[in-house]
Amino acid sequence: MRRLLLSNDDGVHAPGLKALHDALVDQARLRVIAPDRDRSGASNSLTLSHPLSLTPLDSGFYSVDGTPADCVYLGVSDIFDETVDMVISGINHGANLGDDVLYSGTVAAAMEGRSLGLSAIAMSLAGHQHFETSGRVAATLVSAVEQLALPPRSLLNVNVPDVPWEELKGFRVTRQGQRGQGSQPLRLQDPRGRTRYWIAASGASSDMGEDTDFAAIEAGFVSITPLQTDLTRHASIGDVRGWLEALTGQRQQSGDLL
Amino acid sequence: MRRLLLSNDDGVHAPGLKALHDALVDQARLRVIAPDRDRSGASNSLTLSHPLSLTPLDSGFYSVDGTPADCVYLGVSDIFDETVDMVISGINHGANLGDDVLYSGTVAAAMEGRSLGLSAIAMSLAGHQHFETSGRVAATLVSAVEQLALPPRSLLNVNVPDVPWEELKGFRVTRQGQRGQGSQPLRLQDPRGRTRYWIAASGASSDMGEDTDFAAIEAGFVSITPLQTDLTRHASIGDVRGWLEALTGQRQQSGDLL
Amino acid sequence: MRRLLLSNDDGVHAPGLKALHDALVDQARLRVIAPDRDRSGASNSLTLSHPLSLTPLDSGFYSVDGTPADCVYLGVSDIFDETVDMVISGINHGANLGDDVLYSGTVAAAMEGRSLGLSAIAMSLAGHQHFETSGRVAATLVSAVEQLALPPRSLLNVNVPDVPWEELKGFRVTRQGQRGQGSQPLRLQDPRGRTRYWIAASGASSDMGEDTDFAAIEAGFVSITPLQTDLTRHASIGDVRGWLEALTGQRQQSGDLL
Amino acid sequence: MRRLLLSNDDGVHAPGLKALHDALVDQARLRVIAPDRDRSGASNSLTLSHPLSLTPLDSGFYSVDGTPADCVYLGVSDIFDETVDMVISGINHGANLGDDVLYSGTVAAAMEGRSLGLSAIAMSLAGHQHFETSGRVAATLVSAVEQLALPPRSLLNVNVPDVPWEELKGFRVTRQGQRGQGSQPLRLQDPRGRTRYWIAASGASSDMGEDTDFAAIEAGFVSITPLQTDLTRHASIGDVRGWLEALTGQRQQSGDLL
Repeated sequence: MRRLLLSNDDGVHAPGLKALHDALVDQARLRVIAPDRDRSGASNSLTLSHPLSLTPLDSGFYSVDGTPADCVYLGVSDIFDETVDMVISGINHGANLGDDVLYSGTVAAAMEGRSLGLSAIAMSLAGHQHFETSGRVAATLVSAVEQLALPPRSLLNVNVPDVPWEELKGFRVTRQGQRGQGSQPLRLQDPRGRTRYWIAASGASSDMGEDTDFAAIEAGFVSITPLQTDLTRHASIGDVRGWLEALTGQRQQSGDLL
Repeated sequence: MRRLLLSNDDGVHAPGLKALHDALVDQARLRVIAPDRDRSGASNSLTLSHPLSLTPLDSGFYSVDGTPADCVYLGVSDIFDETVDMVISGINHGANLGDDVLYSGTVAAAMEGRSLGLSAIAMSLAGHQHFETSGRVAATLVSAVEQLALPPRSLLNVNVPDVPWEELKGFRVTRQGQRGQGSQPLRLQDPRGRTRYWIAASGASSDMGEDTDFAAIEAGFVSITPLQTDLTRHASIGDVRGWLEALTGQRQQSGDLL
Repeated sequence: MRRLLLSNDDGVHAPGLKALHDALVDQARLRVIAPDRDRSGASNSLTLSHPLSLTPLDSGFYSVDGTPADCVYLGVSDIFDETVDMVISGINHGANLGDDVLYSGTVAAAMEGRSLGLSAIAMSLAGHQHFETSGRVAATLVSAVEQLALPPRSLLNVNVPDVPWEELKGFRVTRQGQRGQGSQPLRLQDPRGRTRYWIAASGASSDMGEDTDFAAIEAGFVSITPLQTDLTRHASIGDVRGWLEALTGQRQQSGDLL
Repeated sequence: MRRLLLSNDDGVHAPGLKALHDALVDQARLRVIAPDRDRSGASNSLTLSHPLSLTPLDSGFYSVDGTPADCVYLGVSDIFDETVDMVISGINHGANLGDDVLYSGTVAAAMEGRSLGLSAIAMSLAGHQHFETSGRVAATLVSAVEQLALPPRSLLNVNVPDVPWEELKGFRVTRQGQRGQGSQPLRLQDPRGRTRYWIAASGASSDMGEDTDFAAIEAGFVSITPLQTDLTRHASIGDVRGWLEALTGQRQQSGDLL
């Protein structure tokens, strides 16, 4: 039986995590470790400034006073007797599309499982109602994940329309779209008269090409985007090299060492 | 005169930020906005749970009770009368090589400037001494950045060996290497007898290919890695599509809708 | 039916809070609002730097991302349609004796109810086992609290021995004892080599007079200490006045105005 | 030469702390340890959940990622070779009158020095301008503090009108007044549509008797209130005892043990 580590960024008490657990409990041994608080927007942040506590709850889940990445870091460590095979994170309350993946704690939790044997999966529901649909999508994908030979350090970012299972249009493999610039921060006065700035909602989709995650969700399909943890823009290496040679060439002519 | 936004993740009082400021102040108008505390490891995390305060310091720098990404988000917003052209972050105390870029607040700050006109630059010193060397590298790159035509949403991740300027071997364009799995968490008892777990140092380099950022620094070269914010593993889209068709094909034969 | 506000400092999921709720649910209408995390040692601290969220849980309890005093502040505000008559906080996991009351979030929560009609009660169990005993003590005191005419802004600090109800020796009215100086901070190296200091356990009792809270618990009695929120040392006002007159007299002779 | 520990709750970079330092530097050896952030409202809270770091700044001050009480706890510990004789905290930006002392980090810092040989002093300026006046008051009191024989575990809470030194009306020894109930929390919607509650400004003075701290400041006098750390309401011990006897008497008649 596979051993899965579940986590999320909405916190250990979030309904989406419970739904994920319930959807997978029959086909795998589950270890659930999640933040004690909502940590949406936590990205891959790790808590380096202080040590973490791991608290077992009555539900059998573990609560950590840290980030999603902290939770998975602990969950795959030798604190536990048994190793796990893969990480499934979510089900996020709300979609993680386009640039969201840079900020998402859900995606980060999955990414933190990159050293494990099987590809990790980040699950998000594009809404707040039909977690069961998303749970069933997760169960479907997990049951077949051994047949998927992705390179190491890859993961799947899965977004599910917020509809009943019967109303799903199907599955689409997509690329990450883009969001336009977000709104301006909300300015407000605190009760002691000081100005404060609250980060506003993220921008609308600005790249909605047919093959993007945005377009799939818009059309009612489950969106599956393979992601990698290598951020190198390989295609630009030549351009940067040319630029650098011109730059250092000029400088060498002017007598500077570099 | 160019208008640059400077930030970092070591905090607004860090020597590396001061060094970056001093290296660039002659060639650009600078706005400096950085976290009030060390936020190393903050990645792209954004503070969504509460509003931020922006405090001007005597130095002319602004301090924010948030993350590096928060700082740049505020710094490019309409809070300020004038827009900026690009973001330079750093100079980080310590290198940001391989998988570090996923966790680095320095890289995240630069990434947050992706909507601006010019490519952002993340500067790190592979040590804690020769900030001046790194400052001089930053000044060199910034002076020429207009000649570099990278696609939008790109940035340069620059690591500088911790040696005097004269001892630099040169510049190399690199790809992001990889780190092996990090050490196990440090276990300790708190003074009230509870077990705590502290995230250990990151793993050693596991992919040290000649063209990696690790290899460049090891050999005494400045490492320049072009990064992107699109995490899609484009090369795997076909594989995932094949896998998904097999999966849904099986299921359709068994009478399931998808 | 009386309306009571319950809170604590061990967090909304702590067994002690549940035990308090269960002990009182038959004799009063209860509103339970507590911190989302363990906030032991929070004292009267209020969160001024950012706004709070109030999250209803499945249990009917409310969770707040703040301190015990924050919780009671919100709980007695007009956020709720109905007012409450008094605050009961606890049951704290561990005793609050002597100087502990200065740091205790449990005592602070009760203190925050000082504007209400009835005296507030802070409940602590001198151990971690017999919450039921402490719950029964709470129920006994609450049932009779209307007969107790304390001046406004008073509260009762109640500590209960960690034994079965039948083994209690009785009740004693006590004064706050004193603790000696606490241990030195625990020094440790973090995984990145930096020295850190962890606040050590509090000092042992240094004033164990027969009439103190320490002595009562030691002897197996429930300790009840009436507390006030006026910190003025009235008995010293004359001394300070004399000192000040001498001081300003000298200065006036020397020609200084004050 | 006396050795003083200075701290505050407005943070290590606050002008009030600098003013306090400058006022005392000629008459004592100073050690300055303060929170890295504004911690107004921190009360006596101690950080128990994680270890603290102590960072020396260029100014010679130490910065701690904790509360005012944490700072003084570390400052009087054996981390330092030399002990200190007393704690002076402040100069707080704004008054600490009446119930403010329960929440004030400035008062708490002074209180944390209660184990030292000399009485601690908490300094607050009833405004934000004339820190120099308050600094001069501090210097005057400190120079004479050895002549003041307060019982152990006492401190002085000093509030200074925000006027030039020449305009001070004199000094008054006062008792702690009271504030009425504070305003209702400020309700607001966060950018993601969730309701949040911000703790409002504290209530106006409700007990302004001639001998209170409020009245002294109102009349232009420096207010000096001797405070104690014993919260016992000694005058009510008899009443509580009577109530308890009635209560347990009834219960014994009904056959209950207690």
